[in-house]
Amino acid sequence: MLGNFSYCNPTKLYFGEDAQNNLTTELQKYGPKVLLTYGSGSIKKNGIYDEVLSALHASGKKIIELPGVMPNPTTDKLLEGAELARRHNVDLILAVGGGSTIDYAKAVSVATWYDGDPWEHFYLRQNEPDAGQRIIPVGSVLTMVGTGSEMNGGSVITNHLTKMKIGKVFGTNVMPRFAILNPRYTFSVPQRQMVSGIFDIMSHIMEQYFSGTDNNTSDYLAEGLMRSLIHSSRIAVKNPQDYEARSNIMWTSTWALNTLIGMGKTQDWMVHMIGHAIGAHTNATHGMTLSGVSIAYYHHIKTYGLAKFARFATAVWNIHEAGKSEEQLANEGLEALLAWMKEIGVATEITSLGVTEDMLGDIADATVLMKAGYKDLTREDVITILKNSL
Amino acid sequence: MLGNFSYCNPTKLYFGEDAQNNLTTELQKYGPKVLLTYGSGSIKKNGIYDEVLSALHASGKKIIELPGVMPNPTTDKLLEGAELARRHNVDLILAVGGGSTIDYAKAVSVATWYDGDPWEHFYLRQNEPDAGQRIIPVGSVLTMVGTGSEMNGGSVITNHLTKMKIGKVFGTNVMPRFAILNPRYTFSVPQRQMVSGIFDIMSHIMEQYFSGTDNNTSDYLAEGLMRSLIHSSRIAVKNPQDYEARSNIMWTSTWALNTLIGMGKTQDWMVHMIGHAIGAHTNATHGMTLSGVSIAYYHHIKTYGLAKFARFATAVWNIHEAGKSEEQLANEGLEALLAWMKEIGVATEITSLGVTEDMLGDIADATVLMKAGYKDLTREDVITILKNSL
Repeated sequence: MLGNFSYCNPTKLYFGEDAQNNLTTELQKYGPKVLLTYGSGSIKKNGIYDEVLSALHASGKKIIELPGVMPNPTTDKLLEGAELARRHNVDLILAVGGGSTIDYAKAVSVATWYDGDPWEHFYLRQNEPDAGQRIIPVGSVLTMVGTGSEMNGGSVITNHLTKMKIGKVFGTNVMPRFAILNPRYTFSVPQRQMVSGIFDIMSHIMEQYFSGTDNNTSDYLAEGLMRSLIHSSRIAVKNPQDYEARSNIMWTSTWALNTLIGMGKTQDWMVHMIGHAIGAHTNATHGMTLSGVSIAYYHHIKTYGLAKFARFATAVWNIHEAGKSEEQLANEGLEALLAWMKEIGVATEITSLGVTEDMLGDIADATVLMKAGYKDLTREDVITILKNSL
Repeated sequence: MLGNFSYCNPTKLYFGEDAQNNLTTELQKYGPKVLLTYGSGSIKKNGIYDEVLSALHASGKKIIELPGVMPNPTTDKLLEGAELARRHNVDLILAVGGGSTIDYAKAVSVATWYDGDPWEHFYLRQNEPDAGQRIIPVGSVLTMVGTGSEMNGGSVITNHLTKMKIGKVFGTNVMPRFAILNPRYTFSVPQRQMVSGIFDIMSHIMEQYFSGTDNNTSDYLAEGLMRSLIHSSRIAVKNPQDYEARSNIMWTSTWALNTLIGMGKTQDWMVHMIGHAIGAHTNATHGMTLSGVSIAYYHHIKTYGLAKFARFATAVWNIHEAGKSEEQLANEGLEALLAWMKEIGVATEITSLGVTEDMLGDIADATVLMKAGYKDLTREDVITILKNSL
């Protein structure tokens, strides 16, 4: 655990098939006006909306509805939500949905009482709310897993005018105060969304694992989460109604991106950066853009972190070391990763996502070249990785 | 992750060689009067006392000293601390030390403004503080690792009159608000204390791991922590000044007992129950009482949870499965555990701790027979385990 860091995560998690019964306990802690935000309305079909509404009614809340949060919440939608929250002077924002809805709720939380352009201030310039600024508490009921937004400060917003998609990680005061995690609430997510979410989780872990500061406790915890995810995903793809498997996937998702496994480590988010650029040029699902480039990406950087890729093979995939070179082990580990991706049914190339060779230049231009782990990428590296992903 | 559970852990951790620089930031959040509690005064020899005092002075605090916290804090000492805290109306209790000192600080925190006998109310009857009762915030500077007290609600107090040692797990309001974790602060702990603490950590993980509800994400996280601990302990026993190893041990210790790896699982604390009874009849160090009975205990219960013991062998100790029976694997796993214990130098039997055959009846009588994991113990079972530990 080299370096100095701090850790604090105050979100209260209620987990299990009866988790929603704790909603009234939490609602009591806030004033009477609740901004209820959700997505396309699927929660009205699967009964989750009714359960949440009955808890709100039982707690005597006045409900202000804010439906229609899209998969990539826009600045327009943000301004609409902030205006509504301000007009009704709401006491709590309750997000019912997946990562997009919870990300959006955090954005409304900081934007409502900010006196200026929230996109420019919080996202473009990455400012924190001023100490004196009012922040509306956020709570969440999770219905789709993958982003970890239920227990972190992350919030990704898209500016549809400038075509920029920017993530901001807010502090503990903007993080959800509570999250209701009922694995059954994720059962009605279509299989393609489920496996896309599973790969998103795997990618969150790998971006923190393959990062250049190796072999501390965080790596061992990351390996535990990957092993658990692989185990449960194999059950869930065969039987999406397997409660135990879905519940382990849900819990793994939360801990994959709530900062714990990144403590004491540098990080490498280049798979996400390339994935975001592909997402901006296609209508591919987020998790599939990550899976589509991962194999090519890791083969591209593996020689710069060979020992860690060899460890990945033995510690995550149970590959027997017996006299193999680090390079051999590294390759076998990536082969095991690829085989698992095919087994659960995520994209293993980007052609099927609608990417053609003539788009690669534009995608490379749109890729943010962040400081990476084993090797910092140039535009040429990105082009090579994209070509190898076709 | 079967069952319903909730998780919340708001303690702010500052980690690293400069962690103490954050003390002034935290101290600002509390009023001017700080009760400074610590143990035998070793912190005055290694410079930690001076560093803490300079942060307190820089923050303009009035310091009320409460030294002399013993390894097993007594009810008398508790009443002394509560009286002092009440008389000075302190705003914060700052514990500088290991688990005993932090456990003690939590006890003073709830006892100071409780109008009655704190031993009877909080420990004997296991009550929570009333909603309206004032609780004094606790902060901590950790100087010895093992108990996880810096990030949990646990507090063990000993009544020297009735010879009862009782642990109470308080809620989030009594947990330390912050903890300063500087691995260098643990460097002056004698080697025997260090390895005793390492086994205490291992035991905390195993008590939650071998428990009867198996194969969920918590087990995978537990395996990650065990692998990390084994790796770092082997380095630390050879070179106790290895910063990286000591820092990983410190971080592992915190996460071994802050509730995370117990989520969704039953638990089995019988090694601790037997260990406590041995501790009451000898002056053996806590960690050594656990190591002294662990091998006999796990051999005694292994047939009731054979699959998990086989998994322990492969997932924690890298033992190759190749055609072995579960029983063979289980035995090889426990042999690997024993070999590691000898390697780091903890007791592997109880004779060297001062236990003789004629004491076994009394120790068995003093052992609290809690609900266990794979097999609930009878007094006869405890006698057998103790005999096999001689």
